[in-house]
Parts: sequence; C-alpha cells; structure tokens
Amino acid sequence: MPALNPAFADIVELLTAVPDGDEAAVAAVRKRDADLTKPGGSLGRLEDLVEFLARWQHRAVPRLENPMVTIFAGNHGVADRGVSAYPQDVTAQMVANFTNGGAAISQICGLHEINLRVFELALELPTGDITREPALDDQMCAATIAYGMEAVAGKPDLIGLGEMGIGNTTIAAAIYAALYGGTGADWVGRGSGLDDAGLARKIDAVDRALALHKDSFDHPLSILARLGGREVAAMLGALIAARHQKVPVVIDGYVATAAAAIAHAVNPEAIDHCLFAHVAAEGAHGKVLAHLGKAPLLDLGMRLGEGTGAALGVVLAKTALHLHANMATFESAGVSRQV
Amino acid sequence: MPALNPAFADIVELLTAVPDGDEAAVAAVRKRDADLTKPGGSLGRLEDLVEFLARWQHRAVPRLENPMVTIFAGNHGVADRGVSAYPQDVTAQMVANFTNGGAAISQICGLHEINLRVFELALELPTGDITREPALDDQMCAATIAYGMEAVAGKPDLIGLGEMGIGNTTIAAAIYAALYGGTGADWVGRGSGLDDAGLARKIDAVDRALALHKDSFDHPLSILARLGGREVAAMLGALIAARHQKVPVVIDGYVATAAAAIAHAVNPEAIDHCLFAHVAAEGAHGKVLAHLGKAPLLDLGMRLGEGTGAALGVVLAKTALHLHANMATFESAGVSRQV
Repeated sequence: MPALNPAFADIVELLTAVPDGDEAAVAAVRKRDADLTKPGGSLGRLEDLVEFLARWQHRAVPRLENPMVTIFAGNHGVADRGVSAYPQDVTAQMVANFTNGGAAISQICGLHEINLRVFELALELPTGDITREPALDDQMCAATIAYGMEAVAGKPDLIGLGEMGIGNTTIAAAIYAALYGGTGADWVGRGSGLDDAGLARKIDAVDRALALHKDSFDHPLSILARLGGREVAAMLGALIAARHQKVPVVIDGYVATAAAAIAHAVNPEAIDHCLFAHVAAEGAHGKVLAHLGKAPLLDLGMRLGEGTGAALGVVLAKTALHLHANMATFESAGVSRQV
Repeated sequence: MPALNPAFADIVELLTAVPDGDEAAVAAVRKRDADLTKPGGSLGRLEDLVEFLARWQHRAVPRLENPMVTIFAGNHGVADRGVSAYPQDVTAQMVANFTNGGAAISQICGLHEINLRVFELALELPTGDITREPALDDQMCAATIAYGMEAVAGKPDLIGLGEMGIGNTTIAAAIYAALYGGTGADWVGRGSGLDDAGLARKIDAVDRALALHKDSFDHPLSILARLGGREVAAMLGALIAARHQKVPVVIDGYVATAAAAIAHAVNPEAIDHCLFAHVAAEGAHGKVLAHLGKAPLLDLGMRLGEGTGAALGVVLAKTALHLHANMATFESAGVSRQV
C-alpha cells in the first residue's frame, strides 16, 4: 500500500484486524436445526440466515429483539450537474418523510417491528462536486467514518444499512469504476428515473470525476474521500463498528454496497459479516456483487434505496430465527425420522 | 380433445370459461402508486404484487384482511416403492404437527398473521401405486377436485396452496414427464433427502408409471387421474374455485405447481391468477415454471413444501399492500416531484 493520510490509519487497522466468526455458535445452531421437524437443508437460505446470525452475534442462541434499519442521508455537489431526476431538496424532504412515517421504509419497519434510525449528514453542506474537486478532504472523510460507527451504539442485534441522497447513485458508480475499472457507462443506471439526456449527463459526470481524481485511486480510502459521499463513508463506519461489536449487517442496494466495496478492497474478510439483501435494478449492481463474491438474498427489481431491500432481508432473518427457535423437534412432535 | 370421461366435463368447462382480470382496478392502483413518495417503478415486484391483488380480487382498493395458506395432505401407494427418505406414517404425523403449531408453516403463519387450514385427504387410503395401477379412478379424481373447491369457502382474500404427502414429489415428477415429455431422470429430485439408491428407485418408479399409463395421457385430467395424487387434484379444485370467486392464488413449490401445470395444459389462461412464490430446490422446478411462463418471486433454495414458500409470498404481498395503502403522497408529505 502507498503512503496514506495518517487520518485513515485507525480505520485501516480496524478493517485489517477483524474478529473471526464464532464457528462453535454455528455448530450449536446446526445441531438444533437437525432435530427440527423438517428434512435437513429443506429451508435453504432461511437456515443459512440463522447460522449467519449465530456466527456474527457470537451466540449459540441468536436473538433478534432489537433489529434496526439505519438510513444515512447526504447531499452531493455533483447533483448540480443534472444527474438526478429529482431536485436536491428532496433529500431533506425525504428525511422528514422517514421520520413522519410516510416513506416506504417507515411502513415496512412499522409493519414488521423493525427499529428505524435516520442519520442526517450535514445536508445543508453538500460534498464537493466530484467533476471539479474532491468530495471530502481526508480529515472530513475519516471523521464521517468515525461518526458512522456511532450507529451501532444502540446495541442492535442486526443492523441494516440504507441511504438517501439525491445524486448518490452517481457517486457509487464512480466508486465502482475507480475500484474495478471501466468507465461511467459500465456502472451507471437511471437512478430514480433519469431520461436519456440525464443518463448521458450522469455518465459524463462519472467520466470527468474519474479523469480528475485518477491519480488518487491508489488506496480505497482515498477513492472514498475523492468521490464521497458522506453517507457512503458513514455506512463504512457502521459496517466496521458492527464487526467489532458483534452485530451482523444487512446491506441494502446499489449505493449501500459501495461502502462494503471500499471495505472489501482494503480486506475482503472485512465484509464476511455482511449479508447482501437484494440485487437492485440499478446500474451494474449484480456485477458489483459478483466482484464481492456475494449472492444476494432477493431479486425483486427494487431500486428505491432508503434501506427498503435491507428491511426485507431483516424480515426474512426474523422469520428464519422464529422458525429455528419455535419449531417442534422430531421427538417433541412424535414425528418419525428419516429411514 | 379426445373423448373424456363425462365426470370431468364440468371441470373442463370451469377451466375454459375463466373470468378475465379487472384492468380498471389495476389502473386505479397504478394511479395511486404514481402519487406515492418514491420514484415510479422503484419497488419493482412489490408494485406488481399490488396490481396482481387488484386484478384478481377485482378491487380498486385491494385488501388482505383474511389471507390463508392451505395444506392438502394425501398418501400415495407409490411410497411402497422406496421413493422417499421418510416412512408414510410421517404424512399423518406432520398433519398433527401443523395443527399443534410445531411445523415450519405453523410458525411462519403465526408470526405473520396468516390463517392456516389443513385438508386431510383420506390418509388411511393411499392412492393406487402408479407403477402398477391408476392412482385414482376418474370419478374419485373428479370428486377430489370438487372437494378442493371447498377450500375457498371461507372467503380468503388471498389463498396459498401447499401440500404434504410422503411420495408426492414422485407423483409430481411423473405428471411433468407426462405433460412435457422426457423420462423420470429429467424431472425427479431427492425430495426430502433421498440417497443415490433411493433416487434410482424414484426414477425407475416414474419410468414404470409412464410406460404403464402412456396411452391415457391424451388429456391433462386423465394424466391427473392416472398419476394422482389426491392433494394435486384438490389443489387444482382450489385453484379453479379461486379464479371464479375472485381470490388470487399463491402457488408453493414443486408439488403444488403440478396442480397449476394440469390447469395450464387445459387452458394456459386458467392460471393467470396464480403467483408462483418461489423456485424450489427440488427436481426440475425451474424448468416447469419456464413451461408455464411464470417468473417465481423468490429463490431461497427451499424444498420443504407444506406451503412454506407460498407463505413467504403472502408475507411479501402483505408488505407490498401495506406500503401501497399507507405511504404518504408527494402532496401530503411535501416532497418535490420529478423535475
């Protein structure tokens, strides 16, 4: 690794020295699972979900008494380049909508008893327009990562990471291009509903940002500072803190995955505790997940963000754990075992 | 069509003269959806689910106050051929487990407030061993279809169709081979967990059944009578009654799909009101869905049956409708629309 701003030293350390999963807890879950009244393996990924909770909660009897979805909201200078179908005011308007219960994520969390927390990240101060300047300086980027670590403070037993920010699919596309190569056209999508002219502007904005900042792409955290945004940095912080505090993570969609991609580029094992809830219908999200070696749980053609995909992943995890905890055993139900 | 037993005449008529969906109700749903605080289309298949409910409930304001999952349980003479990893007693034992709340489906339905009904189909009287004789005579098959129609009597607003029956993946594989060609090896899977020797017996049983009954494969309902089983016939009845009584249907997995495949073979439009909850990790389920032209909602590697996949589909439908009914509009939330 080349010389990196010392502001990032602690973050690199936390991404490098990650605790392993608890395989004894997983073995305990498998032992109980084998006694439940169903053929072994017949619940497929629902069984995997319980093992995932056990492994990363470090609990032989995993729990989901306090699942939480978080939304990190940020604004982006690049929104001035006409890269979104919506005006920048919508970021703050939607934050109010989350809090007032009118947003999709509010309603999913309300129906399924999932806690929802919203983190506003200096909405009045958009990051730098990446076609002209860095999104953040290294100090601010590191401080935002550190702020994101606080999201885990409420001791959730599972945390979903989502985001809101007009312009942030442009940012994520630029990050993917910086990490994996290619140009804007390889990674962007229509976001919240761009027309063809808007899509061309978005591709152009990514390509300009790549050209401007390419000499700073020698470390994933430098990429993050140059391209932003605050919500990506904060989600990275949350993801890091979760690993060290034994909180499994559910990643939402196209933009949230950018935080995981930065972590993965520093140390692939740093995202072992992350479940990818769904493949989004935005840009090249499926290609990003392939780079990360992760199989998404759902494929429902969603592209809303705000943690909606992650919340559905939490619903499946709650369902899976409820089965594991409450199903009868062959013995208790008097059901014959396999011959 | 060749001459068919008159016992089936009413059933063919009900499968042929199916009511269309309510496109005005769908238009009303789309109109409301366009006002909700999210980009149009961004909830993907969750939006499709609400339209599906509106179209087949014939309601501009769809409801899910009484969603129901049904389990049809039957026994099969072919189980004597060593085609299952479990003894036949398990069918009745699991029926007790459903009722007592210990089964996976009981727990999913309990957690998500879905009604569960179990229909026992003469468990003490297994159908004929299809390697040696017909599963059912035509009269009994028609009567079982008629019995299945009663499942819709409780006026559910959505009905999930699931099943339980040791040996019934062998039956379903034989039905698929009879409908679509090929041999046992093209369609069977390991069911509840067969070893290699059991799998070979299962393939052989299907091939013997196909050879014995092939001259009766000239009508889908003749195929159903020859191969069975009672639960497939009853699910077909439920599916038919649901269409005529404006109840949308969620089909579970590999075996439940056989009922839809029989209906589809009579009239492809007869299953337009059926949602396929998931692609199962059993046999060639994905290939069957391709024959039906249906895209499953989920792909979670499940192969349990008993309506578990259908119940997850109902959970997604409930979630989708909750969003549609309760999200804020751009106007009510003061969120700017697309520029």
